[in-house]
Order: sequence, then C-alpha cells, then structure tokens
Amino acid sequence: MKKLINDPGDVVADALRGVEAAHSDRVRVDHENKIVYRKDAPRQGKVGLISGGGSGHEPMHSGFVGLGMLDAACCGEVFTSPVPDQMMAATTAVDGGAGVLHIVKNYTGDVMNFEMAAEMAEADSGVRVASIVTDDDVAVQDSLYTAGRRGVGVTVLLEKIVGAAAEEGRDLDAVLEVAKKVNGNGRSMGMALTSCTVPAAGKPTFELADDEIEMGIGIHGEPGRQKKPLAPAREIAQELVDPILADHDFTGAPAIVMLNGMGGTPLIELYLMFGEVVKILEAQGLSVARSLVGNYITSLEMAGCSLTVLRTDDDLLKLWDAPVNTPGLRWGC
Amino acid sequence: MKKLINDPGDVVADALRGVEAAHSDRVRVDHENKIVYRKDAPRQGKVGLISGGGSGHEPMHSGFVGLGMLDAACCGEVFTSPVPDQMMAATTAVDGGAGVLHIVKNYTGDVMNFEMAAEMAEADSGVRVASIVTDDDVAVQDSLYTAGRRGVGVTVLLEKIVGAAAEEGRDLDAVLEVAKKVNGNGRSMGMALTSCTVPAAGKPTFELADDEIEMGIGIHGEPGRQKKPLAPAREIAQELVDPILADHDFTGAPAIVMLNGMGGTPLIELYLMFGEVVKILEAQGLSVARSLVGNYITSLEMAGCSLTVLRTDDDLLKLWDAPVNTPGLRWGC
Repeated sequence: MKKLINDPGDVVADALRGVEAAHSDRVRVDHENKIVYRKDAPRQGKVGLISGGGSGHEPMHSGFVGLGMLDAACCGEVFTSPVPDQMMAATTAVDGGAGVLHIVKNYTGDVMNFEMAAEMAEADSGVRVASIVTDDDVAVQDSLYTAGRRGVGVTVLLEKIVGAAAEEGRDLDAVLEVAKKVNGNGRSMGMALTSCTVPAAGKPTFELADDEIEMGIGIHGEPGRQKKPLAPAREIAQELVDPILADHDFTGAPAIVMLNGMGGTPLIELYLMFGEVVKILEAQGLSVARSLVGNYITSLEMAGCSLTVLRTDDDLLKLWDAPVNTPGLRWGC
Repeated sequence: MKKLINDPGDVVADALRGVEAAHSDRVRVDHENKIVYRKDAPRQGKVGLISGGGSGHEPMHSGFVGLGMLDAACCGEVFTSPVPDQMMAATTAVDGGAGVLHIVKNYTGDVMNFEMAAEMAEADSGVRVASIVTDDDVAVQDSLYTAGRRGVGVTVLLEKIVGAAAEEGRDLDAVLEVAKKVNGNGRSMGMALTSCTVPAAGKPTFELADDEIEMGIGIHGEPGRQKKPLAPAREIAQELVDPILADHDFTGAPAIVMLNGMGGTPLIELYLMFGEVVKILEAQGLSVARSLVGNYITSLEMAGCSLTVLRTDDDLLKLWDAPVNTPGLRWGC
C-alpha cells in the first residue's frame, strides 16, 4: 500500500488537521467528534444542513461546508459510517431555531445512524429534524451495504441546491421539498478502471484484471453490473448514459450534468469523457444547461468516473447558480 | 494501459471538445490550433497573458483561462511542447494593443518555441511581447528536458497573480515586474509514489518498486534527487520543506502555500500532507497567509504531490485575493 499517510488508523484525524489549516477562514473543526462546521454556524433562523458519511470520498462532504451549502459534515473513518453521537452533536450545534435537514446517502449504516441521531436530537434538545435519503445510482438494486439503490453523485448537486434554498431563508418543509425534487430527478451511473485500497485494510478492495473495467461500480468498490474488457471512451460513455436515460425522462427541461472522477483519473480524461457524454445526451434531445467536471465524490485513488444527470426547472437552476463558498465548490463570492 | 480515451493520438483534441462543452460560458476553443481562449479576448488596453505547454498537467494551463488569469493557453500533445505557430496565433489573437506576456515553464522545447513565436509575432504583427520563464523547482539543476531548474508549481500562482495585475490595467513592464517577483520568491519540490503513462507511449514513463518513492520528481517523470523507501507522511513533508527553506528566505513575510496533487492522489492524502507541511513551516517561523490544496499542476495519473511556497508582500497578496473566474481556480465572482 503506497499512500501519503502516517499511521493508517490516524488518516481521518490527520487529514482534518490539514482541512483546518487550509480553510480556517471558512470552517472550524471539532477534532474530538470529527465534525467540520461552517465557521459561522449556527445561523439564527436558517435551516441547518448536515451531511456525513465514511471518509475517502473527498471533497464530499467536508469540502462542501460553507456559505450556500452544508453547515456541518460528520466524518466517519474511511468508508465507514459516522456514529450517531457525531450526528447528534452536529445537529444540535447547527440548529438556529429553524430545524435541521439530514442529507443521507442510502447506505444501511448511514441511514440507521442518522435516524438514531435524529430521534436523539429531537428527544434531548427539541430540534426539529427532517431527512432526505439519496438513492440515485441506477446501476443495481440492493448492494453490499445498501437496501434499494445507492446514493451517489446526486448528493453533491443536492447539497449545493438545497444549501441555496436554506441560505435564502426557506423553511424546513420547503427545503425538504427541494431536496426531494432533486433526488427524484437525478440519476447516476459509475465505472472503475482500477480498485482502491482502504488504509486500514492495506489491500485493494476488489480485483480487476489489467484489461478489465467494472461498469456500475459503487463508491466503496461494491460490485456493479458487470466486469468487461476495457473499451474506447465513447463506448463507455454510451454505457453510462443509456441506463440513466432509460430510468427517467430528461427531455424538455434543462439538465445539470456532472462528470465526476473517482479520485485517480486525470482531468484530461474526465474532460474527454464529458465531451463524449454531452455528444450522446444532445443527440438524445437533452439540453445541458450547467456542467461540472472534476473530482467531487471520490473513492480514494480509484481510477474511473461517474455520470450524474439532473432534470431541473427554473427554481432548481436559480438555486444552482446562487453563490456558494466552500473549499470544494465556489462561485458568486 | 487503462485510460478513458478513444485513440491515443486523439486525446488532446477529444479533451478540448469536453473543455468547450463544459465551459463555453467562459472560454472558446480553436480546435485547429489547440488553443483555449478567454471568451472575450482580446480586451482592448489589457496586457494579454499566454501560457502553454505539453498537455497532461490539467487544470494547468487550459483550466486557468478566464477573467483574472490567462487570455489563452496553447495545448501541446501530452508532455510535448506546443509549436511556435500555435503560440504566434495566440499572441496576435489576444493582443489588445498593450502587448502580451508569455508565461513559459523552463523546459528547453517550450522556451525555444515561445522565443521563436515572440520573434515572429513582433516581426509579422508588431505585437510587443515580454516573457517570464519560471524555474522554481529546487530538486535538481538541469534535467532531462531542461537546462537550469525546472518550472513547476509557482507557474500556477504566477498565472493567478500576474493575471490580476493585468486585469487591473498595469502595463506590460509592470506586469513583467510582478511576474519576476513571483518567480524569484517561489520555490517548489515534488515527489512521486507512482509513475504515469503517456497515452502515445502506452507504458509507464519510469519504474518505481512497490515500496519505493521518488523525491524531487519532475512533472514529466524526469528523475529527481533519489529513489528511497516509502516513509510516513510527516517524514516526506520534512523532505519537501527542507530544500525549499534552504534555498530562499521565507521568514518575516506572509507566504502562499500550495500542496499540489500529481493527479492520482486522493484529496484526503493531500490534506493530510498539507497539515504536516504547515506544522513544519510554522515551527520554522513562517506565516501561512493563503493556501491551496488540490490538483493544480498534474502529471496525468501520477500519485504523489508537490509543495510550492511563495514569499509575498502586500501587493502580491492583494493580487492573489482579486477575483478570478476560470474552470480551475475561481473566487470573488
């Protein structure tokens, strides 16, 4: 295992010291609970937004804390759910009297722990908590750590859009409505060229032969639809687009399209893939209104990419364009 | 070779179609000449800024085209200098009457071709051209493609800072002065955990054993100072910092610090390294005023990182903080 780390058991704690050193203008870090907070949280009257999950997917979620996005991110160990105590601490800390939305990717551990935290925060501190569970991955139904579909790329777009809705003062019910609309209208599909290695495990999560790729891969290396021989980018693009378009109607409305890198793929390849994807989408009558190309929801050093397509409307596009100031996503300020 | 590409000979051309599809709000692409232009170039009265070099280092340079940074980036084939005709076309196209600055990393091919282009543009079109050659890499004197020191990370910081100087209307001489100040006060040192594979070559540029790293690596995989066994992040951080601090006085002035990923390193490791680096720098009396952590000047899918430290003053910091709107670096707008 070749990694820029000290002790495998300290990776998340050590990385959070770097996050704090780099971004103390915008965030503060609770090192004991491994929570990254927006520096000015809680904001009175604003719905608080919390997400979290296993580490190793950076910039998601810790890199999405700041103005116009999350108020707090709970960082689990690598590929391991945070615990309810972290989530409860974050929930009570960011509540500004308007309630808190939990943004939860659909993995059994995350869902269970966030539910428990919500109950505890409501019972102990009277915080009103709502939850959205993202499940946008069209690759497989049920998976290694999931009942139902996995939550993947749409979580990034949702945190941005819902963050803007909370920032402009919408109440908890309205913010939850936006979250449901985003999750309901977003679909994703990923693929891997290589595996990745969890530091504490010390060996690759799964195996791929030198000429093999895996279509429909999960962000923790969970099995996808099939292993198959490496193919040209344009063919892979087609195999990412097809199941997404088969699963939802994206015609007749502007789409936000994210071509996301899994962590180990050079940007030149991500742009190349984005070009191929857009060509196919536009030939199918889609209108690509906004785009995002880069590493946003990663799987450590895995090489590969995922595609997320979100059907939008005027409100969602306006919220997308609103100012955001986080380490991982920034515009308008 | 496992890459998200079509034909190895089409990688740059295909990727530029993706760049255009993703960022047509800010850039336009001359596909014949493989030049990415700021959409509103030329701007009358503003010094034009051009850079370029071999592809495979994205987001540098094509991702740094836009308001407050470059007017054009000339894209060579992967790890191959662009040709003088590209540079000349870009030079004449971005001249708004105030002259053009060429930002050139110190590699023999780049330097020679930019010199030739400057002479051609001056002779043919009467454009006044100045040049800055960056040479901030403290690892080695002379290298595989370089006489003198190699130009690496400081180029990113220079393009941002000089871009702001040009944006606020400074003339060519003043912009060149800022460029010299940045290059003179910036130092870098890199390391690799793995090699990378140029698509047209189809095999790794160099070899590293499973337990080996290379200190002082170049951005094209040129040999560094030594191969040595993998070590904890804190030791590697020390070996990046030491030669930088030995080469220039960084005390008593605010520093901009960039911890850059080589393309295949997860963000969690880059933050971890940044934490270690800052701990050492602060213990040495440095004041880290601004920081940048992520993939900015990459070497395809190479795993590893580089550290750049820039000694600044009030003017450089003000220029750093000025608005920038490029695909790769954005704030203030």
